[in-house]
Amino acid sequence: MALRLNRRNFFVGIAAAGHMLGQDRQLPLVNADRLRRDIEGLSAFGRPSGGNFSDGVSRVAYSDADRAGRAFFMDRMKAAGLAPRVDPAGNIFGRRTKFSAPNAEHEAPILFGSHIDSVPSGGNFDGDLGSFSALEVIRTLDERGIRTRRPLEMVVWANEEGVAFNSGLAGSRACAGRLASDEMDRVWNGMKKPDAIRRIGGVPERISEARRPADSFHAYLELHIEQGGTLERDRIPVGVVEGIVAIDEYIVDVRGFSNHAGTTPMPGRHDALIAASQLTLAVNEIVTHPAGPQVGTVGQMNVTPNAPNVVPGAVRMTVELRDLSQKKLDQLGAAIRARAAAIATQTGTEIDMKLVERLAPAIASPKVQSVIEESAAKLKLPSKRLPSGAGHDAQSMAFLGPMGMIFIPSIGGISHSPKELSRWEDCARGANVLLHSVLALSA
Amino acid sequence: MALRLNRRNFFVGIAAAGHMLGQDRQLPLVNADRLRRDIEGLSAFGRPSGGNFSDGVSRVAYSDADRAGRAFFMDRMKAAGLAPRVDPAGNIFGRRTKFSAPNAEHEAPILFGSHIDSVPSGGNFDGDLGSFSALEVIRTLDERGIRTRRPLEMVVWANEEGVAFNSGLAGSRACAGRLASDEMDRVWNGMKKPDAIRRIGGVPERISEARRPADSFHAYLELHIEQGGTLERDRIPVGVVEGIVAIDEYIVDVRGFSNHAGTTPMPGRHDALIAASQLTLAVNEIVTHPAGPQVGTVGQMNVTPNAPNVVPGAVRMTVELRDLSQKKLDQLGAAIRARAAAIATQTGTEIDMKLVERLAPAIASPKVQSVIEESAAKLKLPSKRLPSGAGHDAQSMAFLGPMGMIFIPSIGGISHSPKELSRWEDCARGANVLLHSVLALSA
Repeated sequence: MALRLNRRNFFVGIAAAGHMLGQDRQLPLVNADRLRRDIEGLSAFGRPSGGNFSDGVSRVAYSDADRAGRAFFMDRMKAAGLAPRVDPAGNIFGRRTKFSAPNAEHEAPILFGSHIDSVPSGGNFDGDLGSFSALEVIRTLDERGIRTRRPLEMVVWANEEGVAFNSGLAGSRACAGRLASDEMDRVWNGMKKPDAIRRIGGVPERISEARRPADSFHAYLELHIEQGGTLERDRIPVGVVEGIVAIDEYIVDVRGFSNHAGTTPMPGRHDALIAASQLTLAVNEIVTHPAGPQVGTVGQMNVTPNAPNVVPGAVRMTVELRDLSQKKLDQLGAAIRARAAAIATQTGTEIDMKLVERLAPAIASPKVQSVIEESAAKLKLPSKRLPSGAGHDAQSMAFLGPMGMIFIPSIGGISHSPKELSRWEDCARGANVLLHSVLALSA
Repeated sequence: MALRLNRRNFFVGIAAAGHMLGQDRQLPLVNADRLRRDIEGLSAFGRPSGGNFSDGVSRVAYSDADRAGRAFFMDRMKAAGLAPRVDPAGNIFGRRTKFSAPNAEHEAPILFGSHIDSVPSGGNFDGDLGSFSALEVIRTLDERGIRTRRPLEMVVWANEEGVAFNSGLAGSRACAGRLASDEMDRVWNGMKKPDAIRRIGGVPERISEARRPADSFHAYLELHIEQGGTLERDRIPVGVVEGIVAIDEYIVDVRGFSNHAGTTPMPGRHDALIAASQLTLAVNEIVTHPAGPQVGTVGQMNVTPNAPNVVPGAVRMTVELRDLSQKKLDQLGAAIRARAAAIATQTGTEIDMKLVERLAPAIASPKVQSVIEESAAKLKLPSKRLPSGAGHDAQSMAFLGPMGMIFIPSIGGISHSPKELSRWEDCARGANVLLHSVLALSA
């Protein structure tokens, strides 16, 4: 965690950045108004009928709204002189052709972008900001006639959210060659996955050709809203993502003995919900001591038979742990397991804790992190290193080459909600950090 | 709580009772074999196909199995010389006519009985024991030619369990004039309640005529299995019920803030399930200190949105409190409410606790309790006073006149389960206590 400026300098930095956005002709800067108009324009596709921008968006991947939003996006690319290419998985690529340096085609490009699909009742910044900022970076460089040594390529990934077919990061995983073996057989809402991919211009029978070779890019960059409240709370406009956290998900089965709530005296009970409650509090206690960025959540709990007049006989609950370090997750899991055993003994229940899903961490390239930090500093914007607790397409790209992510503040830390909101000036700041990171990496 | 015999005398008592059951010709005793055969005979109606007695029974009120079981029961009544009368609610009454004392019809009768409907996958003792013991009492007195001053009347109540139409004690409440105003409009499994009542020989349009006047009996007696484990644990064969507990049921709504489990740091959370878990443990702690017969249960808990990767935003849970004393329930409710307020403050949630149902206690007549105790003592059976944590038809009868209940041990305290079991010798002991209580009250 590196703080480039102290609190006093922070306000100086903000003021200077504001000044620069309008008047400094030395540093290239994006067109903040155009970026905003593009994001607002896209928000019409999937908007609740009769609503406006603040009512959020439902643009689930492969839906009519997604198709219309993708067409809108590709029109904006064409207007900027790009020739959109849809790969077999439905990802949209656009390669900058103007002002290419001589022999640019022999160099691996800088790849940058995000996604434009949303969760149902989602917001207008998650994905959209990073996608349009990528386009805006290319437009800005074209307008300035700035040449780069390495080629530039932007991307809009298909089905990042994974609401459809329960397959998050579907497009970027196809690109990284990380599709599950059953993934093309899935059916969702009566739709087969190959048909869904065809709906957005993909070619499911050639999905394997969506795979790019390792090191087919020099670096991957993604600008995204934080979706948490850290940056806003600390009043830092730029987050430098250290990596995307590892996730361990456990299913815990607590077995007690179901009995009549009226005729079973308190001392004779084997109440599964008492044990589950103790374990829920234990997870919270173990994860929060000592303090750190790690998180742990009991998000799901189902009680059997779940009747007011019956002592609960069984509880099934989830425990989900996230941290950048797999070792930390192992330690937390072991501590929770030990506590579960003690609770089982004390409550006369059996507790079985099973690891059901393990997602490895995706560490951002230290070099790319430094480049992002230096770009923010050049723009006199305070920055801070932090992990990403949420998944992003960047984690697919980490399988292929160096990646980095830029976060900007989410007001109230709210995301996946119509209330998701970021300040337009923060959006522009993020796009400018992306611009200068691209410039530094492609030089 | 009165213990008539200490541990040493207890075994003497058991041995003596065993002796008496077979050989003592001085005290009238029921025919234990006949009682067992009747209970086993009834168990065929609603038995799982291919199963046997130990596989339990599903004889839900108004079902084909219930109709067949009632027909079997009425055949046994007729074989004993009784003329079964089905009232408009479907309750079956049988008045002893042989050996009535002169002018018996001018006296209020002793009424005694139970029910024969069951929960789905229930046991063969809950209700069945008390119903057939009532018949056995009359048969025993008839065989001995014993006259009583007051008339004797037995009853098998309709739909005690209330699985059908969610209306427990339906028959006995009709008899006490305590039906809810909407009760005849209810529909269950596509069946209208009046049609259901007709299926068992009732006359729904004349249901109000099922009501008996207050003091239309001198005392009401009911023999039942304990459905809890107290008597078995304490090795006491006879329970003298002090009353049926009052029940306060609360619905508690905990409102936190739903958020992304990956991006929301631990300190910024308003996790409704953390608060609900604390409250669940608080209920347990408050109810168990100081020790006593009161019970409190969080039996139902529903989490929203209930996803592994989302911090719970809301929890709805029930808190059910039972004790003979309404004052005690008020105190417990107030203590839980105070703790809920403290938990809400500490966890950054809102907790709303609403009393949704209050059932008044039904106190057994002290005189009837004494008569039962004296009858047990006469049979050299240790007895113990205890509350009933479960509801029984006796609580309807408490609205009309003095009532009392006799409990016998349930092995393992298990009920409403195919595993429900009582020893046949305990069944016979209970029937004999009923016999001598009837004799004492009718003298």
